[in-house]
Amino acid sequence: MSKVAVVGYGSTNFTKEEMPIESLLVESTKQVFNSTKNLSQDVIDGVIVSTNDNSKYLGAILSELTGIKPKIAHSVEHLCSSGSNAVISAFSYIKSGLADVILISGVDKANNPGQVLKWDKTRGEFNHPIFWASIFTKAHKRKFNTTDEELAIVSAKNYKHAMDNPNAYSHTPHTISEIMNSKNITDDLRILDCSYPCSGSSSLLLASEDIAKKFSEQPIWITGIGQKTNSASFSKNELSTLNSTTIAANDAYKMAKIDSNQIDVAEIHDAFTVFELMAVESLGLTKNTRSADYIRNLFNTEDRKINPRGGLIGSGHPLGATGISQIMEITMQLQNISEKRQVNNPKKGLIQNMSAAATSSSVLILEQ
Amino acid sequence: MSKVAVVGYGSTNFTKEEMPIESLLVESTKQVFNSTKNLSQDVIDGVIVSTNDNSKYLGAILSELTGIKPKIAHSVEHLCSSGSNAVISAFSYIKSGLADVILISGVDKANNPGQVLKWDKTRGEFNHPIFWASIFTKAHKRKFNTTDEELAIVSAKNYKHAMDNPNAYSHTPHTISEIMNSKNITDDLRILDCSYPCSGSSSLLLASEDIAKKFSEQPIWITGIGQKTNSASFSKNELSTLNSTTIAANDAYKMAKIDSNQIDVAEIHDAFTVFELMAVESLGLTKNTRSADYIRNLFNTEDRKINPRGGLIGSGHPLGATGISQIMEITMQLQNISEKRQVNNPKKGLIQNMSAAATSSSVLILEQ
Repeated sequence: MSKVAVVGYGSTNFTKEEMPIESLLVESTKQVFNSTKNLSQDVIDGVIVSTNDNSKYLGAILSELTGIKPKIAHSVEHLCSSGSNAVISAFSYIKSGLADVILISGVDKANNPGQVLKWDKTRGEFNHPIFWASIFTKAHKRKFNTTDEELAIVSAKNYKHAMDNPNAYSHTPHTISEIMNSKNITDDLRILDCSYPCSGSSSLLLASEDIAKKFSEQPIWITGIGQKTNSASFSKNELSTLNSTTIAANDAYKMAKIDSNQIDVAEIHDAFTVFELMAVESLGLTKNTRSADYIRNLFNTEDRKINPRGGLIGSGHPLGATGISQIMEITMQLQNISEKRQVNNPKKGLIQNMSAAATSSSVLILEQ
Repeated sequence: MSKVAVVGYGSTNFTKEEMPIESLLVESTKQVFNSTKNLSQDVIDGVIVSTNDNSKYLGAILSELTGIKPKIAHSVEHLCSSGSNAVISAFSYIKSGLADVILISGVDKANNPGQVLKWDKTRGEFNHPIFWASIFTKAHKRKFNTTDEELAIVSAKNYKHAMDNPNAYSHTPHTISEIMNSKNITDDLRILDCSYPCSGSSSLLLASEDIAKKFSEQPIWITGIGQKTNSASFSKNELSTLNSTTIAANDAYKMAKIDSNQIDVAEIHDAFTVFELMAVESLGLTKNTRSADYIRNLFNTEDRKINPRGGLIGSGHPLGATGISQIMEITMQLQNISEKRQVNNPKKGLIQNMSAAATSSSVLILEQ
C-alpha cells in the first residue's frame, strides 16, 4: 500500500479575538496554497474540517469558498483531539485508495462550544476541564512529590518557545516566579498553568507516495498511528498515568517499528502543566528519569525537544486546530526549516493529542 | 487489500417524538449486538457517530455507554449525507489496515439543527430546503412535462412501502388524490411531497474480509463508492439533473466494475418527490424511459425496486441516520430477509444519499 506524507501546511495566527469560522478556514487554506508548489484545486480529492463549532456543512462551504470540488467532504469532531482524528481519517482515505490528496483544515473560535464538558453529569457543576486537571495535579504531587515550581517550569518553557512561533497567541515570556504567583484558579492550578481557548485555524495537505514529491521536496511521512478511547467521563480514569496515551503510543511505535528513545522532537498536549509531565512519561520519553527532572533539564539546557512551538500553553488552544498545528510544527522541524525553534537535525518526531482528561488519545509518528 | 463487508445492523423506530440523542444511539447499537453473532465489545476497533446534533464527544460517550473501548472514535457531519460519509470513512479505516471492525451509528433528533441552511445567505429568508426543492420541481415540470399526479405517485409508492417497514415513522397509506390535495406549502409542493424530520438512530457493523464470516453467514460487500461535492450553495446548481449524483454514481459503478442496469434494488434520497424522479435518471437507472413513467410503472406493477423501505418520505428523515438506514435496508434485501418488503432475489444494490439540494452526493454499491 502507498505511504502517506504531509506535503503542505498553513496556519492563521492564534488569537483571543472572535473571528468568523469561515474566514479562519479560508485563511489557513490560502496559506497551504501559497506555500505548496504545483498545488491546484482540481487535484484535491478530499476536504476534511475538524472543529467543535456548531456550523454545519463546513467541508462543502470551505470547498466552495476556495474553489475545490472534492469527492470527500465532511467535518470531524472529537473535542480537543478533533484535529488528529481528522488527519488519521485522511490518512486512511489515502491509504485505502479512495483518495490521493486531502486537505485537512482544523478550526475553532475562542468561545467554541467544546470547552465545557456538559455531559459529565457525575461531576455536577465541576464540569470545566480545570477541575479534572486539578485532581490530576494533586495526585501527581502526592505520588511524585511534584512541586509548584516544577509545574511552573513547564509553563515558563512553553511560553519561552512560543516567543519564536509567529502564529502563537502569546509572545510574552513568563518567569517561574511570575507563573507561581499568578492568579489561583483552583487549589493546585494558577492561571498560567492553563492553556487558553483561542480563535485559529491550521491546515495540512496529505498526499500518497506516488504524488507526494510533486508538492514537496521534503515530504514528511506518517509512519506510526495509535489511538485509544478508554471512556468519556473522568470517573474511570487512573490518576497517575495517561493510560490512553500509553496505549496509543505503544501502537504507534509498533506500527512505525521504532522505540520511544528514537524520538527527536515532540509536540504534546499540555492543556494544563501537569499533562506535559504526565505525557512525557506515558509516551516513554523519560525512561527512568522523574518527569519533572526531565523537563527541568530541557529548560535549563534550552533544549527545545518537547513542545518547540510552545505547546498549547504558549501557542493557545483552538480545539479543532490544535492537533493539526502540532503536526505542522513537527513537519517543519523534520524539514529543518523551523528557524529559531529548530531542534538539532531531527529524524523522527511525535505528536500526542488528547481529549477530556485523556479519556482518549491519539499519537502519530512522523519521519523524514 | 482486504474487502469490506456489512456484517451487522440495527435501528430504532423513527418517530416525531423528541428523544435524548444518547438513548437513540444506545438503542440502535443494542440492536446490532442483539442481532450479530459472536459480537463482543472487545473486537470493535472503531465507533463513528454520524449526526448533525450539537452534542460533542458522542463517539466516546456511545463507547462508554455500551462498554466499548475503541481505538478510533469520533463524529462525522455532512448534513443529510452524514451517514454515508461516516460509512465510507469506516470503509477506508478498514481498507487501510487501521481497523478490522467498526461500528457506525447515525442519529438525529426531530428538531435537529441541520434542517435549515443558515449559511446560504444568497437566498435571504428562503433558506429552508423546500424552496430549493420547489425550484427544482418547477424546472422538472417545464423540461419533462412532469405532472402533479406523477409527483404524487412517488409519494404514494413510498408511503405504501413504508407500511411494511417496522422502523418507519409512517404506517399510513396515502392515495394519489389525497397527496395531490394535501396542504400546499409552496406553489409546487404539498406537505405529502416532503420527507419529515424525525428522531431516530440506525447502526451498522463493518468488518474486514478476514473476520466478516465470524459475524455473519451472509456478509454483504461494499464494492463501489463514489462521492462528489460541487458546491455548498444552490446558486451554482443545474436545475435539470443531480450532477453530483451522476459523478458519484459513475465512480461507484466503475469501482464495482458494473453497469447501472445490473442494479436490482436501490434506496435513494427522496427528500422531496422531485428528487426521486431526478435521482433515478441521474443514477442511470431509467435508461431511455422518462423518469416519471419509470416510477409509475414500478408503482403499477408493485415492483419495490426503488425505495423498498419507503425512502425518506415514508420512513422519515433523521438526518445523520438516513444514509445508514438506507444501507441497512439494501443489506437486508441482498440477504433476502426483508419479508414483505423483499424484492425478487437481488444480487446487487445501490444507495444514493445527498445533501443540500444535491450540492453533494454519495453513492455506494453493495453486493452479495
